[in-house]
Amino acid sequence: MQDTHIGLAHGNGGRYMRELIEELFARYLGNPLLDVNQDASTLPSVEGELMMTTDGFTVQPLEFPGGNIGSLAIHGTVNDLAVSGARPLYLSLNAFIEEGLEVDQLERLVSSLAEAAREAGVAIVTGDTKVLRRGEGGGLYLATTGVGEKMLQLDMDQIKDGDQILVSGPVGDHGTAIMLAREQFGMSGDLESDSACVLSLTQALWEQPGIRFMRDPTRGGIASVMQEIHRVTGFGIRLYEEQLPVQDPVRSVCNMLGYDPLYLACEGRVVAVVEPDQAEAVLALWQALPAGKGAAIIGSIRKDSDHVVLETDLGGERLLEELEDDPLPRIC
Amino acid sequence: MQDTHIGLAHGNGGRYMRELIEELFARYLGNPLLDVNQDASTLPSVEGELMMTTDGFTVQPLEFPGGNIGSLAIHGTVNDLAVSGARPLYLSLNAFIEEGLEVDQLERLVSSLAEAAREAGVAIVTGDTKVLRRGEGGGLYLATTGVGEKMLQLDMDQIKDGDQILVSGPVGDHGTAIMLAREQFGMSGDLESDSACVLSLTQALWEQPGIRFMRDPTRGGIASVMQEIHRVTGFGIRLYEEQLPVQDPVRSVCNMLGYDPLYLACEGRVVAVVEPDQAEAVLALWQALPAGKGAAIIGSIRKDSDHVVLETDLGGERLLEELEDDPLPRIC
Repeated sequence: MQDTHIGLAHGNGGRYMRELIEELFARYLGNPLLDVNQDASTLPSVEGELMMTTDGFTVQPLEFPGGNIGSLAIHGTVNDLAVSGARPLYLSLNAFIEEGLEVDQLERLVSSLAEAAREAGVAIVTGDTKVLRRGEGGGLYLATTGVGEKMLQLDMDQIKDGDQILVSGPVGDHGTAIMLAREQFGMSGDLESDSACVLSLTQALWEQPGIRFMRDPTRGGIASVMQEIHRVTGFGIRLYEEQLPVQDPVRSVCNMLGYDPLYLACEGRVVAVVEPDQAEAVLALWQALPAGKGAAIIGSIRKDSDHVVLETDLGGERLLEELEDDPLPRIC
Repeated sequence: MQDTHIGLAHGNGGRYMRELIEELFARYLGNPLLDVNQDASTLPSVEGELMMTTDGFTVQPLEFPGGNIGSLAIHGTVNDLAVSGARPLYLSLNAFIEEGLEVDQLERLVSSLAEAAREAGVAIVTGDTKVLRRGEGGGLYLATTGVGEKMLQLDMDQIKDGDQILVSGPVGDHGTAIMLAREQFGMSGDLESDSACVLSLTQALWEQPGIRFMRDPTRGGIASVMQEIHRVTGFGIRLYEEQLPVQDPVRSVCNMLGYDPLYLACEGRVVAVVEPDQAEAVLALWQALPAGKGAAIIGSIRKDSDHVVLETDLGGERLLEELEDDPLPRIC
């Protein structure tokens, strides 16, 4: 592409749009299933039940320590399929590009998106781009829809009293990294987003009995996943602060700024609810994987309680209520 | 919902977002396959090959004569599957909502979207909403991804010298209607967008031999579809102005404002390239349908030409070149 910045003509259905698609998107995303000359792509038939999910991405800044909106748009949708018990197969990609975005930056983001898709073993099979007028977009918004094959039957309805709750690694990294990248707090540090594909963690459980339910704790963090389980099943939940993995820099930043890491988004973690006598087996499977080294059993499902409660390190109890205010907009 | 306008908290993963989804989106879009408590939906397996397509929608104004961004987001994606020879089955929906959008307007748009989905026989099986800060969105952007089952093998590669080109109805209605709705030209009139589901037109051809290729002439209009066929196949194309259906009000508005209806978007028409001895049969099938009453044979594929040429009513010839400038941004 000769242009250095995206213009409205890149969205008009004519030559500029074709060049943008052919020379940037198709160059990085090209695969045998993606045919930019067709309105729809033909895909091999899938034997089992299909699973389908979708997510929109509006993160600011577009690039942050540990990732960017491109890789995040892959991880978000691949992870939703993975924690739902599916093998992710095919993705669609929508890009809403604001007039004035630098072509170099767009290229970095699309290249990173393509790499994340390759690593997750999924193909982008169809896409669309729209150009938004200057001032009517935040640089770039993405939407990805994923289709996969169901490998594991999971459902909140399967959750029972006494089930154990596991998390695959430290919580709050993504939310904290975005916060630091966005604001000028004068804090640097090595903190990176945990944005990553969780398929290795969920695939490890396809043959493991006793898995009731999985979820990736994104917007609203792990506390919101607990709230949702509580609301849908009616069971109480008890978490143990001393077992909850939180990285030191995340804890410091949150203490300093008054955030609670339990409400901050992760983008590369899995929460699993597991039959009590299988919890140690799941923990061992996860801890044996690079993505699960920091895994822990963090709590349990309680019929005898009507709340989501955190037992604090000091022996106290704190209610984890449903999120009302927005702690941190546009984190994903 | 108690609120009259969308706020940032409706995108935060907490109670406001849940209420927005449960009380507005799920209320209209509810169907047995859509489970708002799951990250991904489980779908019955599909026997044949899958087809998948996606589109983004940024039309301004959000509501226009003959449709709105909600119905358009269904028609656009359903039609891409339909003209690709598929039976549309499942759709995902992404909504990027600008802070400050009226809840009443959002409700009208979602209700219209739901009705269009019902009419097209597709289910919205998964969705996501994001809220954009005031001034960082155009009110509402939508993205829909569709999955269908392949019923008909179509490909531009099948196109041969002498093939006939048909269109299912008058061209340029959508582009012209949007133009009139957007600008205050002091022209009223009855002109409406042609935004509609084209499945009846494509389904009528599932058993019909000789269909080489179909496309819906959206952004860039029918001229851009011809350019694309020319570029991919290398064949020339000859269109006949006197056979090209253009409604009188569209012609008048375009004459007055200097637009060419051949470059303006349709959102409810099909262009088909058909074996010469089957063209009359296809025309008859289409004209027998309510959606195809205005169908016509408008041109042919020509090995002996290297251009896309329009034979004008006056006996002259006009080259239809690839679109460079943007005649009308944000029409879809």
